[in-house]
Amino acid sequence: MPKKAKYLVAPKPKDTKLTKLISGYDENNKKIVAKVIKEKSLTIFLNNQEIVTLMSIGDHPKYLAIGYLLNQNMLKKNDKITKIEFDKDLDVIVIRTRRKTNYEKKLQKKITTSGCAIGTVFGDIYDEIKKIKLKSLKKIKHSWIYEISKKINLTPSLYLETGAIHGCAIIENNNPIIYMEDVGRHNAVDKIAGYMFLKKIRASNKFFYTTGRLTSEMVIKTVKMGVPILISRSGFTSWGVELARNTNLTLIGRAKGKKYLVLAGENRIEYK
Amino acid sequence: MPKKAKYLVAPKPKDTKLTKLISGYDENNKKIVAKVIKEKSLTIFLNNQEIVTLMSIGDHPKYLAIGYLLNQNMLKKNDKITKIEFDKDLDVIVIRTRRKTNYEKKLQKKITTSGCAIGTVFGDIYDEIKKIKLKSLKKIKHSWIYEISKKINLTPSLYLETGAIHGCAIIENNNPIIYMEDVGRHNAVDKIAGYMFLKKIRASNKFFYTTGRLTSEMVIKTVKMGVPILISRSGFTSWGVELARNTNLTLIGRAKGKKYLVLAGENRIEYK
Repeated sequence: MPKKAKYLVAPKPKDTKLTKLISGYDENNKKIVAKVIKEKSLTIFLNNQEIVTLMSIGDHPKYLAIGYLLNQNMLKKNDKITKIEFDKDLDVIVIRTRRKTNYEKKLQKKITTSGCAIGTVFGDIYDEIKKIKLKSLKKIKHSWIYEISKKINLTPSLYLETGAIHGCAIIENNNPIIYMEDVGRHNAVDKIAGYMFLKKIRASNKFFYTTGRLTSEMVIKTVKMGVPILISRSGFTSWGVELARNTNLTLIGRAKGKKYLVLAGENRIEYK
Repeated sequence: MPKKAKYLVAPKPKDTKLTKLISGYDENNKKIVAKVIKEKSLTIFLNNQEIVTLMSIGDHPKYLAIGYLLNQNMLKKNDKITKIEFDKDLDVIVIRTRRKTNYEKKLQKKITTSGCAIGTVFGDIYDEIKKIKLKSLKKIKHSWIYEISKKINLTPSLYLETGAIHGCAIIENNNPIIYMEDVGRHNAVDKIAGYMFLKKIRASNKFFYTTGRLTSEMVIKTVKMGVPILISRSGFTSWGVELARNTNLTLIGRAKGKKYLVLAGENRIEYK
């Protein structure tokens, strides 16, 4: 077993701003104190337009806002961000771009997906995704899949402290390097997408790990980031598999212990 | 241990319309066939207005549409439904009411919550929920909590067949009587709400069980149904607990084996 993961960004389970102690009772009617995750609202503006109000754990508003806008196609890869203003009392973040933006029409037509939490994706994103074919030749070694899961499971996290939270990670070979958590699985992905964009981190030689299910929405966000391999301990949906095959994404699911299933892009697995 | 659950509505794991067989590879590079859940879109109209497009497993479009509209406050408890038209080729359902409806303004202002999947709740629902105090004196016996979980876990389900799915159930004493599943947890709840409404099933003497987390959204939907006790194998969020306390809902979480925690409304637990 290789050494522990070294993170650029890791969960902060000891950050008392993210959790709350709540008193209650256990199954023996004994008074207990439970540590529970806190939800905070974040209202995102793009230039002068209010886009959405999300419920998040509130740890990375900047990455969340940027990643959300990228994943909703409201911020383009070549957009120049001129200013980011966050008001932590109002829970409002404003992203300003050089390009003038107006998404009023777009905001009126959403598709609510089966993905966890945010679940809203705009129709035009499907059209865009269908045209993408991931070309990365990066391979994943059979043994890494187990090592990655193990390292993530052993990382101190809000999940281990409080439960009721989803986690996502960016992996380099067999090492998780960015690990973010949120009450909404989509938020965790969006925060990672925002971080990758702002820090200009190359995606085509990385893997993406999620604790959540491999739905169409998760596939779309992974493909939009340009990451060629998506791994989950959880299961698949048929539309997720179909989109992964269409976009040449490798989809590894039900990764538990030394077991896993590959339902798309098996050519990127190096079995020995 | 009491006998098996007798359901009014149970999951249909053998319904081949709900699943798909997909070929892939396991961890030994052996070719396998995996059974995977299918997602279908459903576009809901209320009278002449298109309200939303959801991704669902497609088993109960009528209950899903009615429950969704109820939970979004677009259908009122005393509304008279004059017609339900479902076009299964177009995946469109139209709910017609005697009352004239227009929610154009409302549709423009949503809050995306941390709940699983749909994640959109309109601001006015919070205002409504704050005024509700559940008055039901119905109690739950300590031993029932374990029996309920056990019966649900032993029920043949899509979860056991395919994974990647959430389940919800309505419980009478220690018996699950309605058990619905969906790719989106919210959809499973909405289908149950729609069923309860159309079949005029009394809520104040029932319990609600969910495989998902106890977020604010789950609390809101339970309170709107009028069910006084909410049980989950999963964890809590702080806002979920706060809303449960404000509305006098009993919140039982982390129910695994014979263990559980109660963080709100402990007066409804009968410990012996």
